[in-house]
Amino acid sequence: MSLYRHVLRCNAHNLDLFLPFIISGKHLGWIRNTFADHLRRWPRFFELSGDKVLINDNLSSCETRTKAMKEVCEILAFENVIPPSRGELFSVAPSLGDNPLINIDRAWVSVFGFESYGVHLNGYVLTPVEPELWLGIRSPDCLIDPEKLDNMVAGGLPAGHTLEENLLKEASEEASIDKDLAVKAHSAGYISYIMEVDEGLRRDTLFIYDLAVPEDFEPVDQDGEHISFIKVPASEALSLVEDGDEFKFNVNLVIIDFSIRHGILKPDHHEYKLLIRDLRPFA
Amino acid sequence: MSLYRHVLRCNAHNLDLFLPFIISGKHLGWIRNTFADHLRRWPRFFELSGDKVLINDNLSSCETRTKAMKEVCEILAFENVIPPSRGELFSVAPSLGDNPLINIDRAWVSVFGFESYGVHLNGYVLTPVEPELWLGIRSPDCLIDPEKLDNMVAGGLPAGHTLEENLLKEASEEASIDKDLAVKAHSAGYISYIMEVDEGLRRDTLFIYDLAVPEDFEPVDQDGEHISFIKVPASEALSLVEDGDEFKFNVNLVIIDFSIRHGILKPDHHEYKLLIRDLRPFA
Repeated sequence: MSLYRHVLRCNAHNLDLFLPFIISGKHLGWIRNTFADHLRRWPRFFELSGDKVLINDNLSSCETRTKAMKEVCEILAFENVIPPSRGELFSVAPSLGDNPLINIDRAWVSVFGFESYGVHLNGYVLTPVEPELWLGIRSPDCLIDPEKLDNMVAGGLPAGHTLEENLLKEASEEASIDKDLAVKAHSAGYISYIMEVDEGLRRDTLFIYDLAVPEDFEPVDQDGEHISFIKVPASEALSLVEDGDEFKFNVNLVIIDFSIRHGILKPDHHEYKLLIRDLRPFA
Repeated sequence: MSLYRHVLRCNAHNLDLFLPFIISGKHLGWIRNTFADHLRRWPRFFELSGDKVLINDNLSSCETRTKAMKEVCEILAFENVIPPSRGELFSVAPSLGDNPLINIDRAWVSVFGFESYGVHLNGYVLTPVEPELWLGIRSPDCLIDPEKLDNMVAGGLPAGHTLEENLLKEASEEASIDKDLAVKAHSAGYISYIMEVDEGLRRDTLFIYDLAVPEDFEPVDQDGEHISFIKVPASEALSLVEDGDEFKFNVNLVIIDFSIRHGILKPDHHEYKLLIRDLRPFA
């Protein structure tokens, strides 16, 4: 089979079907043509010129833009045009760490094609042979990829959190990792992708962290996202990625990246150079 | 200062000044316009159409092409148009591991803009705080970047060697690492760049290996490339890269890549995403 097919799947999209979404002169999102028509109902808030959508410049602060978008999205969610809110705010800014230009419920980030951020933690036990990865098994109740394999810890970045704060929070909630252990995790890069989804365009950047856990450590889920955990040699996890679809769609890319960095996936693999280049099509 | 300036420096080129060089129907190299004129003297071997250079199809085997290129290059080297040969053959193939379409002396790889491969080994000691990197100090006799800092082990890939064979050979020659230790090195990705140089176009892919060495290990040079070695904390090596030009030009990129993978360079660095994307502009 192939590893690269997961990169292709995560990057399947046709930007011809989307219009740039401009806020305060900056191109921050992508809106599907067919969805843009709904926004014509709010000429106070949006300006549609045929080749782009702008938020009206008289909505000049983060606060006024946030309020307008909330009003619009709640009506459209009530009409079942877009998904219901999740009650978790996400900050939209030109770059991670910049002041937000708008805050929006996480459920609607892809509707407007905003760039989104997450943290994924590879938890593993070092052995003389190869690292053994702890993998979560996703709950049957998960909206996305229920019952599939997952990283030990992963989560989207909520408004007002740094990456490291979010990592510590998720490590505690998803795997009962105490702070003394979690702070030993180190950043190891990112992967990114642009994926067309039912509600719009997912543009995700996942910041990757590695954490070697003690041999006797066992992750325990606190928030119900994972029903259990398994520990498998990294080469076996990579085989599962190559030969099947056992993993949550984007976790495939994280396992490939881990395997490259730890020498499990070697330069003689026919997709090696292509994978490393295309695991991050945008910065 | 900036880390990204090293990426820009390694990728400074203007392809408008070069013509595609086609062998057996495949675009394998880039030849500077002004150098292409010299090749008009050998119409038996080359076909120049103004927008590309072809090796004549009647040179139909690797052997005949290798012989023709050797004849041409020896004359041009004698006339000081190109550098003298180094006596080390390099295989040119559509991709690494494919059957070679031509073999050429390493000194002339950039003259024809062929893609070239190397291995770079990060040798380091694990400490509770951070990895400490072993760095070579290049000999004053080195053609490229004499007296600058270097990886513990690095070398171009000669014809007929696999990456791992080359790594073991260079580890022994450049740092007296015995095979039992050297085989513990693991692949960790690659970096690549396209750089205009006096003789033409360098298109390098450097395969990166990591090796944690024992605390009491000390590298000893056998082949005269390094006059000595120093051991510095990885964060200090990264500061040297950021604030100065102490390292061989391409080793800067290897240290940046190492620092990203080992959590020394963190996501809050303003160049983080750009660096990770652009450390490998081609695959």
